[in-house]
Amino acid sequence: MKEIRIGMIGYSFMGKAHSNAYRQVAAYFDLKAKPVMKAICGLYEHEAKAAAQKYGWEGYEKRWQDLIARDDIDVIDITTPNNVHCVQAIAAAKAGKHILCEKPLASTLAEAKAMLAAAQKAKVKHMVGFNYRRVPALALAKKMIEKGDLGKIFHIRAVYLQDWIIDPEFPLVWRLVKKEAGSGALGDLGAHIIDVAHHLVGDIDSLTATTETFIKERPLPPKEYGGLAAKAASGKKGKVTVDDAALFLARFKNGALGTFEATRFAAGNKNGNGFEINGSKGTLKFNFERMNELEYYNREDPADRQGFRTILVTEGCHKYAGAWWPPGHILGYEHTFVHEVYDFIENITNNTKPSPDFADGVKVQAVLDAVEQSAKSKQWVKVKV
Amino acid sequence: MKEIRIGMIGYSFMGKAHSNAYRQVAAYFDLKAKPVMKAICGLYEHEAKAAAQKYGWEGYEKRWQDLIARDDIDVIDITTPNNVHCVQAIAAAKAGKHILCEKPLASTLAEAKAMLAAAQKAKVKHMVGFNYRRVPALALAKKMIEKGDLGKIFHIRAVYLQDWIIDPEFPLVWRLVKKEAGSGALGDLGAHIIDVAHHLVGDIDSLTATTETFIKERPLPPKEYGGLAAKAASGKKGKVTVDDAALFLARFKNGALGTFEATRFAAGNKNGNGFEINGSKGTLKFNFERMNELEYYNREDPADRQGFRTILVTEGCHKYAGAWWPPGHILGYEHTFVHEVYDFIENITNNTKPSPDFADGVKVQAVLDAVEQSAKSKQWVKVKV
Amino acid sequence: MKEIRIGMIGYSFMGKAHSNAYRQVAAYFDLKAKPVMKAICGLYEHEAKAAAQKYGWEGYEKRWQDLIARDDIDVIDITTPNNVHCVQAIAAAKAGKHILCEKPLASTLAEAKAMLAAAQKAKVKHMVGFNYRRVPALALAKKMIEKGDLGKIFHIRAVYLQDWIIDPEFPLVWRLVKKEAGSGALGDLGAHIIDVAHHLVGDIDSLTATTETFIKERPLPPKEYGGLAAKAASGKKGKVTVDDAALFLARFKNGALGTFEATRFAAGNKNGNGFEINGSKGTLKFNFERMNELEYYNREDPADRQGFRTILVTEGCHKYAGAWWPPGHILGYEHTFVHEVYDFIENITNNTKPSPDFADGVKVQAVLDAVEQSAKSKQWVKVKV
Amino acid sequence: MKEIRIGMIGYSFMGKAHSNAYRQVAAYFDLKAKPVMKAICGLYEHEAKAAAQKYGWEGYEKRWQDLIARDDIDVIDITTPNNVHCVQAIAAAKAGKHILCEKPLASTLAEAKAMLAAAQKAKVKHMVGFNYRRVPALALAKKMIEKGDLGKIFHIRAVYLQDWIIDPEFPLVWRLVKKEAGSGALGDLGAHIIDVAHHLVGDIDSLTATTETFIKERPLPPKEYGGLAAKAASGKKGKVTVDDAALFLARFKNGALGTFEATRFAAGNKNGNGFEINGSKGTLKFNFERMNELEYYNREDPADRQGFRTILVTEGCHKYAGAWWPPGHILGYEHTFVHEVYDFIENITNNTKPSPDFADGVKVQAVLDAVEQSAKSKQWVKVKV
Repeated sequence: MKEIRIGMIGYSFMGKAHSNAYRQVAAYFDLKAKPVMKAICGLYEHEAKAAAQKYGWEGYEKRWQDLIARDDIDVIDITTPNNVHCVQAIAAAKAGKHILCEKPLASTLAEAKAMLAAAQKAKVKHMVGFNYRRVPALALAKKMIEKGDLGKIFHIRAVYLQDWIIDPEFPLVWRLVKKEAGSGALGDLGAHIIDVAHHLVGDIDSLTATTETFIKERPLPPKEYGGLAAKAASGKKGKVTVDDAALFLARFKNGALGTFEATRFAAGNKNGNGFEINGSKGTLKFNFERMNELEYYNREDPADRQGFRTILVTEGCHKYAGAWWPPGHILGYEHTFVHEVYDFIENITNNTKPSPDFADGVKVQAVLDAVEQSAKSKQWVKVKV
Repeated sequence: MKEIRIGMIGYSFMGKAHSNAYRQVAAYFDLKAKPVMKAICGLYEHEAKAAAQKYGWEGYEKRWQDLIARDDIDVIDITTPNNVHCVQAIAAAKAGKHILCEKPLASTLAEAKAMLAAAQKAKVKHMVGFNYRRVPALALAKKMIEKGDLGKIFHIRAVYLQDWIIDPEFPLVWRLVKKEAGSGALGDLGAHIIDVAHHLVGDIDSLTATTETFIKERPLPPKEYGGLAAKAASGKKGKVTVDDAALFLARFKNGALGTFEATRFAAGNKNGNGFEINGSKGTLKFNFERMNELEYYNREDPADRQGFRTILVTEGCHKYAGAWWPPGHILGYEHTFVHEVYDFIENITNNTKPSPDFADGVKVQAVLDAVEQSAKSKQWVKVKV
Repeated sequence: MKEIRIGMIGYSFMGKAHSNAYRQVAAYFDLKAKPVMKAICGLYEHEAKAAAQKYGWEGYEKRWQDLIARDDIDVIDITTPNNVHCVQAIAAAKAGKHILCEKPLASTLAEAKAMLAAAQKAKVKHMVGFNYRRVPALALAKKMIEKGDLGKIFHIRAVYLQDWIIDPEFPLVWRLVKKEAGSGALGDLGAHIIDVAHHLVGDIDSLTATTETFIKERPLPPKEYGGLAAKAASGKKGKVTVDDAALFLARFKNGALGTFEATRFAAGNKNGNGFEINGSKGTLKFNFERMNELEYYNREDPADRQGFRTILVTEGCHKYAGAWWPPGHILGYEHTFVHEVYDFIENITNNTKPSPDFADGVKVQAVLDAVEQSAKSKQWVKVKV
Repeated sequence: MKEIRIGMIGYSFMGKAHSNAYRQVAAYFDLKAKPVMKAICGLYEHEAKAAAQKYGWEGYEKRWQDLIARDDIDVIDITTPNNVHCVQAIAAAKAGKHILCEKPLASTLAEAKAMLAAAQKAKVKHMVGFNYRRVPALALAKKMIEKGDLGKIFHIRAVYLQDWIIDPEFPLVWRLVKKEAGSGALGDLGAHIIDVAHHLVGDIDSLTATTETFIKERPLPPKEYGGLAAKAASGKKGKVTVDDAALFLARFKNGALGTFEATRFAAGNKNGNGFEINGSKGTLKFNFERMNELEYYNREDPADRQGFRTILVTEGCHKYAGAWWPPGHILGYEHTFVHEVYDFIENITNNTKPSPDFADGVKVQAVLDAVEQSAKSKQWVKVKV
């Protein structure tokens, strides 16, 4: 069987999740080409080596530049902090590698556009890691909306709620530092729900936003990427330079209205990535913490028996889900990445357009950019891609 | 407008609920005759007097015999402890009064049969207070099952779970004394779910049961009906003479299987009167703590969008519910009694058969009787009405 | 016992609900004065007469001016369309009557202020009908927040979602006509959640809003208040002059952030008045469709057993709820008005300040006003009372 | 690192699940020995070969006897139909292999005892595949009950509800044939909930049961194991020789009462393996379809804020769960097998007793045996191990 050889940059949270996907995909899906886990690399050599062994990679590289330069690699998978996506993706494109890049695509809109241009010029396949599109429940939502089952869409209210930094003693990790993360809840969480809204509702036309940093200073962490690590020993605090929460109202090009809220200060919400979409024919609701379920209200059911229906999206006829287990045997978080990798391999072997690709990533970045502008200017801002 | 004049015996929990029903029914339902709250009576005169004033009765009587003897009363409503239902109902029947009697109909099957015979002989209208039939969600369930929406029924699992006597220091109230209550969880809670099962699934053919009294002795209460009160001052404990929990498996005449469980020892369940009914075409689920909701699974929905649907039974097209408020404005516990009284007045003015009547009450009593027999004999027992 | 004599203007939806409250309150709550339902009046005499009979009023009046003029009335209860609240309330105040006025207090901020001034000058008790404050679950939420159980509040996301006018053929009733209703979803639904936010979180400092009318024209209704009725026969359509949906982001004076959304286009949501409030110590969630439940997440629970807890607010120790039934026997929509009337009678007999009073109503009106300004100007607007 | 070399018999549903576990375990858990997937075998050579390739086994064997005979294998994993567990396990024990055997342990109690004796004699490690013990939520339940958080246990109501054979045209697969499956819903589903009850509540003393086969005949499948396959071409129907549903009431040695129900005729329940356990201090509830959640009611919470708490069992402090992803990123069905294999490897490397081992499997088999006896005799039956 044909092989698709993978090289991955980054071995942390997303590195673990993507490794799992390459290790698992062939056992559940019929592939035209088999992914081969060639090498992983990351910031520290000993950690890259350990990750290679633990996650099933054939080897590792010390420098990502060397990984990209290798002849025996077809795909570069980028799971690093947002501020290095751009340089790594452009290098990969120039080397003619297909690219799967974690979200948000970049730290800025300009970077994102440069990445898209580089990938297009190199004629490689490019995908952004908005993995929630691959939740079977969201695949079903997409199918239903495309079939017109919701009719004209009036509203989406989308939230991504977490609570892991409520404690003021939680340290200043890279995700709280603007120069590494680009933004806070906005880019980390908001990017996901913006992409879901683009996918299910359509393009956002304009928005009004506000952002907040509730805890302005935090203890420097004991160990951190780059310069921050050094200061840690001093027991000092550092300034939080990203948003803790970002909220905006949006108007879509098709006339729908949206409310969006991304926060890391919503106690009890661990991974509350959810939405409700109201159309003229019905409603869909989703919450990732119950990711196997999609709630559906059909205004065309008989009048005395309308209600929100909890579809357990684990049937053989459900996209992705059918490849795994019998009905009622639920899937978990990392399955979304297996589906993502499955689709990306399909895109490569069938020469089809990935979804979402870097152009979709640019669109999300444009919204993130508009949110930051609006939060500063206190004006409605038109989204410009 | 024609009047239907009510006399009620009992002013406690059920007396309060039934009084509310007579006070409210005309404001929400169109009636052919208006109920007039003539008089209430009960064990203690001062309490009957206070209840009359508080609940809106024109007057009160000291003795129930006098109430029944009054010429200006058409209906006797019995809300007393179970051990006096029989004597009061038979007296009312002999006096030619229509009777609404709280459940369970009696303390024993023999009593229940005697009550039915007396009511039939007197040609009065008779109804048993299984108020849960009047929950709009259950009225909808009944309608759906009658229309065949569930197909052939395979299973019912019915529970009535409460938790108010888990504490061993909870006193020995009348509900825990066999000679007053007849039985414990069985007659108090089990009777309700047996009636619901009869109503929705059909007649029970045979059963195997077990009962348990987890706490064998309890403090005598400071004040109680009759002789128990006297002993209270002594600080002594008394023996619990009823079941704390009653469980049984049943086979229905139509081939369905049932599990039934009534208990006062299910922590966290306050009024957990619920069931799940599985048929060849679908399933219905109900829990009284969310009494405005009926869950429905339809096997004939499209394969990729089947799911349990939460019907909020508050639409104008829903029986009973439409008389109250706009959709989504939920009803509460006491509404079931308003519906019960509405139906009973309809039965009287239209000369139709109440549901459930004393014959239905006898059928429930026969099951209660079979449960007690089986719990003792450890054998399957055929239900004999 | 002392009596408090009530006169009510309006016999429609709210008239039915308030009538129920006066009829029921004495049967459940211990009162220092008993409400007497003297007279009701409304637009059409025959309907007022029918309502008096059905809902238990001693009599009726043809003109509200005559009702207010009566010597034997202590309280004027106003349940009319919003555009006449002002004139009726001011007249009642001048006549020295206590006033319970439905929400929103008025059609404009100026009217609301005039009403407050009149009531203050007359030294009468004044209350606005934000009945949701009287849901036992919200009373519990208030108590918990006041005790500090949520810590510092970061977020509220409040929605009031309905779906009754999605159908474009739904007629142009008074609630869709600006000169009668003042506004649409904003004043009808938004007013409630604004008041809840004021009550539980604090005052709103500034906001950015957008509103939308999805269906611009609708059939004129067969019968309607005033001039609209005449046109109905013509089969013509009329212009919808209010918002179908209103959304805003808010900043509270205490630093909390809020998202608010009121809409009549959220399919499947019948009376989806709900919120989630996130604080440093925990979270509370509520949805009126399950009004007996309050969800609570406590960050101080042991780490391995934290979770959203569904408190069934029907215990004896819960405010209001304890007056009704045993635990688990739930309450419904109209109970909130019984509680409201109970509290208002308490305010009158104890000479205490009602909550919410007209000053609170003015504060809500100021927010409604700011929303309309912001929706027009597309600017953040400071709320000015 | 030390290796533990695995040979597996069976490549169907459980074969796929166990393969996944061996492939995944080292990437998430720190192991003292690394599992090596040596060889798989099964009924048909070409399928075994395909499974080996797809699931990541080094090779395959044609005959299970040859697999067991191999020197380079330490563990035999048995995922075959129940009727061959016994002969395969005894052979494996005699060859000195550690054994992980799917549930139920055997087709009969006698077989189960023989397997236990063989494994004990051979001094090998033995485990039964009751994978639900490895759901993190159940591990938490176990921990809480052992700590006494539930107090004295009064009740368990356990169900395992599925709906995959409601259609009478569903064919007569091996699970519906007594000589291959031993029993129907009883052994397939009931065995799981019996083991969970043993694990969480204690040993069952006696029981009364009933079983039913709703559909007595079914079409013979187009292809099936052994002799059935031949008849398939004939278009004939065959007799269903196992139960479709099995229900029983149980008394535990510690005084608790249990209701158990296993059925494949509960429409809408896909994998409804759940329970509610009521104790003197609180209650736990679980449903596998939301396997990441455990519901907990604590009677010792403050009176006004008691409620069922949904613990999302995905925290770092939760057993098993902490090894995977951040909080709120849920796990799925197959994770339970990864945990099972992790624990079994720990048992082997640390020389500790597996849980559940064959002795636990015998205990479950004794209950299954008692259920069948009771269903036939219509008597209460004492469970005899």
